[in-house]
Amino acid sequence: MALKYKLTYFDGKGLAEPIRYILSYMGEEFEDDRFTKEEWPLIKPSTPFGKAPVLSVDGKQLCQSVALTRYLAKKADLVGKDEWEDLHIDMIVDTIGDLRQAIASYYYDPDEESRAAKKEPLLNETIPFYMSKFENIANENNGYLANGRLSWADIYLVALSEYMSSIAGTDLLEPYPTLTSLKEIVWGIPKIKEWIEKRPKTDI
Amino acid sequence: MALKYKLTYFDGKGLAEPIRYILSYMGEEFEDDRFTKEEWPLIKPSTPFGKAPVLSVDGKQLCQSVALTRYLAKKADLVGKDEWEDLHIDMIVDTIGDLRQAIASYYYDPDEESRAAKKEPLLNETIPFYMSKFENIANENNGYLANGRLSWADIYLVALSEYMSSIAGTDLLEPYPTLTSLKEIVWGIPKIKEWIEKRPKTDI
Repeated sequence: MALKYKLTYFDGKGLAEPIRYILSYMGEEFEDDRFTKEEWPLIKPSTPFGKAPVLSVDGKQLCQSVALTRYLAKKADLVGKDEWEDLHIDMIVDTIGDLRQAIASYYYDPDEESRAAKKEPLLNETIPFYMSKFENIANENNGYLANGRLSWADIYLVALSEYMSSIAGTDLLEPYPTLTSLKEIVWGIPKIKEWIEKRPKTDI
Repeated sequence: MALKYKLTYFDGKGLAEPIRYILSYMGEEFEDDRFTKEEWPLIKPSTPFGKAPVLSVDGKQLCQSVALTRYLAKKADLVGKDEWEDLHIDMIVDTIGDLRQAIASYYYDPDEESRAAKKEPLLNETIPFYMSKFENIANENNGYLANGRLSWADIYLVALSEYMSSIAGTDLLEPYPTLTSLKEIVWGIPKIKEWIEKRPKTDI
């Protein structure tokens, strides 16, 4: 019998979007449960560790966006053929996480002065450093981020880059032709294309 | 033929110690390559993404401490029996990562005032929040953090808690009897015991 999925997150792409992409890729129906900022304090204590997204699978609450994406990727056969290939996928995904942290540390900085000071090095050093590394890796891997073929690392980057680009205020993929082609490949997958067309429109 | 491992990191436990524990558990010989703060700027550009630890496997450089630990854990048979069990391990490991980030955000804060302001909520709210959750999970899982038996999540917590306790200035495990027993189980594994006895003595 099919598992019943409910994904609970803010009304935005954010950390939940890679999960939504993979569920869509799998052709899984899922309840796309979105809450407002005002509702979050009421929901927070009921989550496993006070954070979102939460994926409920047949009523059991699970969390950690990367762990959830990897779990679904295994079901979707978007993983490596052995631990060596999986390591190459995980390296990329965790490095995307480092980039996300750097962008978030700028965007969510409550101190105006410190936030302003972070902007220039983020846009001119940190983002180009990571993105050019990813571009080089894709150039050496048949256009993909690991193992020369499509994996959840590619879907993870394309899905999360929507959020990262929004909060950084710059299109992360646009300057890089191979990564732009990768985005077109991922967005061209019929079930993902369908998701992108039907999903709620949000800024971040 | 046996793979040749070289682990490059600062002269400390830090993010490399879980990797050292698992390599030791596996009975693998590895070159424990430690650099000084002064040497790091020279080494940094040669790493895959400007970060350490780096594990060289038969001369190929790999990075991301959690990805590396998971890779070795698969070889060591310290993973789940299916993707559901692996998700439970990954959830714990990534949540330990959130706790580590919170502690690091205090310890490495260059602004004295902001650092001082973070100390009290870290020690009295954040750390007890996470550690009591882990204690409850262990109580419900036969003394382990996932799936009712030893996995790399347990080794990860015990190994990383050495570093986290040092920089937080408080023993993370000591207030929690089940987690303390878990530490004794992990430290009692002969090959890990041997590693702890022979490793270089470092503060963090």
